[in-house]
Amino acid sequence: MSVGLKYPSSILSINGIRLSTCCANIYQKQRTDLTLIELSEGSKVAGVFTRNLFCAAPVQIAKQHLPEFNPRYCLINAGNANAGTGEQGLLDANSNCKALAKLAGCKEGEVLPFSTGVIGEKLPVDKINAALPELIIQLSADNWIDAAKAIMTTDTIPKAISKTISLGETSVSITGIVKGSGMIRPDMATMLAYIATDANIEKDMLEKILLHAVNKSFNRITVDGDTSTNDSCVLIATGNANNKCIVSQSSNEYSILESTITSIFCELSQAIIRDGEGATKFLTIKVSGGKNETECTDVAYKIAESPLVKTAFTASDPNWGRILSAIGNSGVNDLDINNIEVFLDNVCIVENGQRAQSYTEEKGKKVMLQDEITLIVNLNRGNCQEEIWTTDLSYEYIKINAEYRT
Amino acid sequence: MSVGLKYPSSILSINGIRLSTCCANIYQKQRTDLTLIELSEGSKVAGVFTRNLFCAAPVQIAKQHLPEFNPRYCLINAGNANAGTGEQGLLDANSNCKALAKLAGCKEGEVLPFSTGVIGEKLPVDKINAALPELIIQLSADNWIDAAKAIMTTDTIPKAISKTISLGETSVSITGIVKGSGMIRPDMATMLAYIATDANIEKDMLEKILLHAVNKSFNRITVDGDTSTNDSCVLIATGNANNKCIVSQSSNEYSILESTITSIFCELSQAIIRDGEGATKFLTIKVSGGKNETECTDVAYKIAESPLVKTAFTASDPNWGRILSAIGNSGVNDLDINNIEVFLDNVCIVENGQRAQSYTEEKGKKVMLQDEITLIVNLNRGNCQEEIWTTDLSYEYIKINAEYRT
Repeated sequence: MSVGLKYPSSILSINGIRLSTCCANIYQKQRTDLTLIELSEGSKVAGVFTRNLFCAAPVQIAKQHLPEFNPRYCLINAGNANAGTGEQGLLDANSNCKALAKLAGCKEGEVLPFSTGVIGEKLPVDKINAALPELIIQLSADNWIDAAKAIMTTDTIPKAISKTISLGETSVSITGIVKGSGMIRPDMATMLAYIATDANIEKDMLEKILLHAVNKSFNRITVDGDTSTNDSCVLIATGNANNKCIVSQSSNEYSILESTITSIFCELSQAIIRDGEGATKFLTIKVSGGKNETECTDVAYKIAESPLVKTAFTASDPNWGRILSAIGNSGVNDLDINNIEVFLDNVCIVENGQRAQSYTEEKGKKVMLQDEITLIVNLNRGNCQEEIWTTDLSYEYIKINAEYRT
Repeated sequence: MSVGLKYPSSILSINGIRLSTCCANIYQKQRTDLTLIELSEGSKVAGVFTRNLFCAAPVQIAKQHLPEFNPRYCLINAGNANAGTGEQGLLDANSNCKALAKLAGCKEGEVLPFSTGVIGEKLPVDKINAALPELIIQLSADNWIDAAKAIMTTDTIPKAISKTISLGETSVSITGIVKGSGMIRPDMATMLAYIATDANIEKDMLEKILLHAVNKSFNRITVDGDTSTNDSCVLIATGNANNKCIVSQSSNEYSILESTITSIFCELSQAIIRDGEGATKFLTIKVSGGKNETECTDVAYKIAESPLVKTAFTASDPNWGRILSAIGNSGVNDLDINNIEVFLDNVCIVENGQRAQSYTEEKGKKVMLQDEITLIVNLNRGNCQEEIWTTDLSYEYIKINAEYRT
């Protein structure tokens, strides 16, 4: 079950990136569950990671390696999160990095490890090490969609996007893949994301673009308010397009690259929501007329994470009282409720803090029956506007999460 | 569906309190939906109300009346919350107060109005006014359980408790009723609660007891993290027991009364959780070893409100990784995760921030299959301990809330 999400097509290879996948038997059923991404020498890499205190062993190691080395490989397993595994988890992830480094002829620190799956089980480190030789042999520039598949857990569909832009006279490509559909909430979404470009750009500029893009995308989505132990997002620039190196934020090329990468991040993060666990609706919650970003996102998240609002959307029930109640409960304590307007798409449901005169249940119901709905709240007290994306809360969500390990 | 909750029995009448109920046809189906509570002259009344900004019209009026008048009547309807109804909602609630005052020969300000039910629909003020004469005729000291039934919405069972204590040589009784099973979250729980005693006590002492009791009970429960527009809790002391008036917090009688009223509040608030929408488990989340109350409750609520933890309980799945993840996500940012211990009842599942050596899936599963489970988190860094009560998240919750208005 996903909302408006198509199987990816027209995915571009990126000069300097090769990928491979295989079945390392981490899952009981046969499926690809191990992915290798190779970065050509000289690639720049920026990364952001979960803020959960219980961050997984591979996240701890990737955060150590990234500032000290120029990564040459990302090694990603699905089926086991290697989180809540203590000292042994660190030993296990390091063992995989070491084995790969030996086979590939690079330094251990040049490998970034990633894991996603069940928390608290020991990583099957031998199975992973045994699969590494095959992974190296199979590396190819064309394997992006295979990689998008192999990193999936409860996702129902692989998620990949490509775009091409011109920087000066040079054509530059960007391709990204992502996994994630539950445990989604900012700082950051529960997900693994790998986005690569062949653009030539300095590392600190790449880091700035990553932070901007994450803030407008993966930090603007929520499924269930839970932040995972394994969130990681990696942005790679191989430099192989040989455009004039981007060294300044004020350059035209920086702006073009930043906005294109941000739009890719937004599409990938929305794809997570469209494939949200049990999602039957794709909801955009837009809060306008706020004094600042914080109050807009506070109101938006309170609505987006209210189980009562979510279940009303599941039932296509325009129960706008639950929306008002969530706004009143957002912690923004000096709101004048008499100024608040609420719209479902272009149907005004609330004005002056109560049901709009022009509103009828029929109009509300018509919008609620759609698969994709924008809920707009105007606080009418400032010029700030923010939007986030979320899903409804269906029987299917319970089923997926109650039966995850069975 | 409720967990360990019995139909109330041995409910004591309170000298000075009379109650009545009737069917005012606010619901489409035939059921009692209107309740009147009469307080003898000279009764002291303390109240606390929702902190939701969109607080319902009757709440606004009750908050006005309470400090200015000595209430003689509580008028309570189910089936309609009279919230999100703007100026008209205030006119409607006032109209009921006025009509009752005229019939009963008291001041309008001596009536406290309460409503619970669907938000945003106009209050059927004429139906309520038409039922008032019958309500007054039917007033009787024995109608507590009828009242507990008539204030129910999605509750599956009426909730009432009584206790008797001795203050000096005087026997004093306390009886309380409550409704609420969804939209439950502190500040305050979504509920209406009426607790009365015949004890003789000064009003400011009664207010202190109410705040203490609410903080340890209704502000320690959560079903779905939503705070309603209509929460109200009223504590009444008629004084008719004629004990020596309690005028000081340091008196023995104050302590006895406070602890007994608090235990009644705790039982009533736990009854709400036991009857939580779709509840299949009654969960006590106890956080010990904290530096202060706030960090204990922050961790407890993050666990209690995590949909992933809740669905794991629904499935009786000891997926302790989700519990660790919730702790790491609680916003208490200087926790040393290596010191954390987690217990399911007396089974240690996590020590030193990872799976306990002695833990087996079988032991965890055995506890998880129980209807009532205590989850204990020891932060091991202080002496503070707090506990809250919550439920799991089942298919039934979705069903109830998706179909609430259909």
